[in-house]
Amino acid sequence: MNEQLKYFIESNIPQVEAEMFALVEKIDAPGDLKESMLYSLKAGGKRIRPLFVLAVLELFNKDLKVGLTVGSVIEIIHTYSLIHDDLPSMDNDDFRRGKPTNHKVYGEALATLAGDALNTLAFGILARMNVSAEKRIELVNLLSIAAGAEGMVGGQVLDMEGEQRQLNLAELEHVHINKTGALLRFSIEAGAVLANVSSEERATLKEYAHHIGLAFQIQDDILDIEGTTEELGKTAGKDVASDKSTYPALLSLNGAKDKLAEHYQLAIHALDQLQVDAGLLREFAAYIVHRKN
Amino acid sequence: MNEQLKYFIESNIPQVEAEMFALVEKIDAPGDLKESMLYSLKAGGKRIRPLFVLAVLELFNKDLKVGLTVGSVIEIIHTYSLIHDDLPSMDNDDFRRGKPTNHKVYGEALATLAGDALNTLAFGILARMNVSAEKRIELVNLLSIAAGAEGMVGGQVLDMEGEQRQLNLAELEHVHINKTGALLRFSIEAGAVLANVSSEERATLKEYAHHIGLAFQIQDDILDIEGTTEELGKTAGKDVASDKSTYPALLSLNGAKDKLAEHYQLAIHALDQLQVDAGLLREFAAYIVHRKN
Repeated sequence: MNEQLKYFIESNIPQVEAEMFALVEKIDAPGDLKESMLYSLKAGGKRIRPLFVLAVLELFNKDLKVGLTVGSVIEIIHTYSLIHDDLPSMDNDDFRRGKPTNHKVYGEALATLAGDALNTLAFGILARMNVSAEKRIELVNLLSIAAGAEGMVGGQVLDMEGEQRQLNLAELEHVHINKTGALLRFSIEAGAVLANVSSEERATLKEYAHHIGLAFQIQDDILDIEGTTEELGKTAGKDVASDKSTYPALLSLNGAKDKLAEHYQLAIHALDQLQVDAGLLREFAAYIVHRKN
Repeated sequence: MNEQLKYFIESNIPQVEAEMFALVEKIDAPGDLKESMLYSLKAGGKRIRPLFVLAVLELFNKDLKVGLTVGSVIEIIHTYSLIHDDLPSMDNDDFRRGKPTNHKVYGEALATLAGDALNTLAFGILARMNVSAEKRIELVNLLSIAAGAEGMVGGQVLDMEGEQRQLNLAELEHVHINKTGALLRFSIEAGAVLANVSSEERATLKEYAHHIGLAFQIQDDILDIEGTTEELGKTAGKDVASDKSTYPALLSLNGAKDKLAEHYQLAIHALDQLQVDAGLLREFAAYIVHRKN
């Protein structure tokens, strides 16, 4: 990993996590519910979504502080979605990031409710932010679309259907544009909202985010084949075992790698349209296609 | 039921439902997800929460239109909570309002996701309303607190604990102030926000809502004993069968009825502080303590 990106990630993750934990620590809730919520938030993760918010703010020389809160909100939404995805009725995963999943520790009922509480909390945190009411309401609206039936949750439903029958490439892309893509795009767009960028810059950043989101998912599919359970912190080879619709299943492993390179190039191409030096976002793109977990 | 209230309910329920269904019909989501979301919204219900929003607007002679949207949002949150409560890992209910529960029709995974999507959608609808950004953000903030770990979801967790051990009266009250009370209080408070009432009037209405919320729950506990499965549209006698902490279990059936009368009186007493004639809210209080389902 490039040194600039490495420094950016290593210096910002502790700040994002401190902000996120503090936002949840301070709520007045039953002890075991709060513990269950914090358990999954503290289970680690790459924190890519909050880092994207911060990277956009950095790109336009803005104060990162307000990005820590929005970044926390996105990671809170991402975490609730993982808790629910891992439930026995969904993916039935016992491990996540090398640790027992939420319901393995707290039971299904509490895991369901912890996910619900995190989802609900995320919107309250946005509403209480120290930016104009107009900006806050724009972020609430965009997050609701990105995380809901028209975005992440809708993508999850399509993904489940993809376990029942083989999807074609257009359908698979549609799954991922929603399932993983929507929240990643929101991260970039939220950074753009906070940084007061022009509508042209915002459209360019969304283009970048679109391709990064797909690249992220294709690499996820590739890692399920090439990675080990130890590297991934979750069971490797699950997609093949469950005969799931994935890029490698549809395009072959090499075809998936070509597709990954294509989206990487398109993401970089989008950045070329910006007037500012987007070095950090370029490095982020490279990191996403080369990551091992 | 009083004629004025009967007319108010019968004329407004169709409008609330039309607004709520339209808000969900227009989202662009996978067909089975949307169908599952609409299934539970269309399964009926007393629509008490939206009616409370409208009753407060009516009390201050305001246009009810904007209340239809906020009322729909609250009913959407209430419905998501019922879908998740009914799941096998939670209350494991097969019937709700006389119809098969969401997961019995669509499976647990889709029911979980339909609940998540409704929860998320509710905040987006508030964000897109046609009132000032300040009002919208205030409603988002209040709803997040009322529906989340500090309110409804937190109350649900405490309620589950009450199935493991006998709660005392203070604990039981705490459960219900959160589990059912928080969203009912939000309904009244949202009406107050939309109607631009004074802070004194708002405090008085919240006092009314507090007692109405508890009265509602005590009557629920009483109906579980005195009602029939047919009247209730859900299995009667479940609380006693599961040895659950309830008002009748703690205070005896007559003690619970005394407590119900006490909260009814305190709700009416709160209304006496208002300068306007709160006839409709008085009748609502009477309806809630005398209802049979």
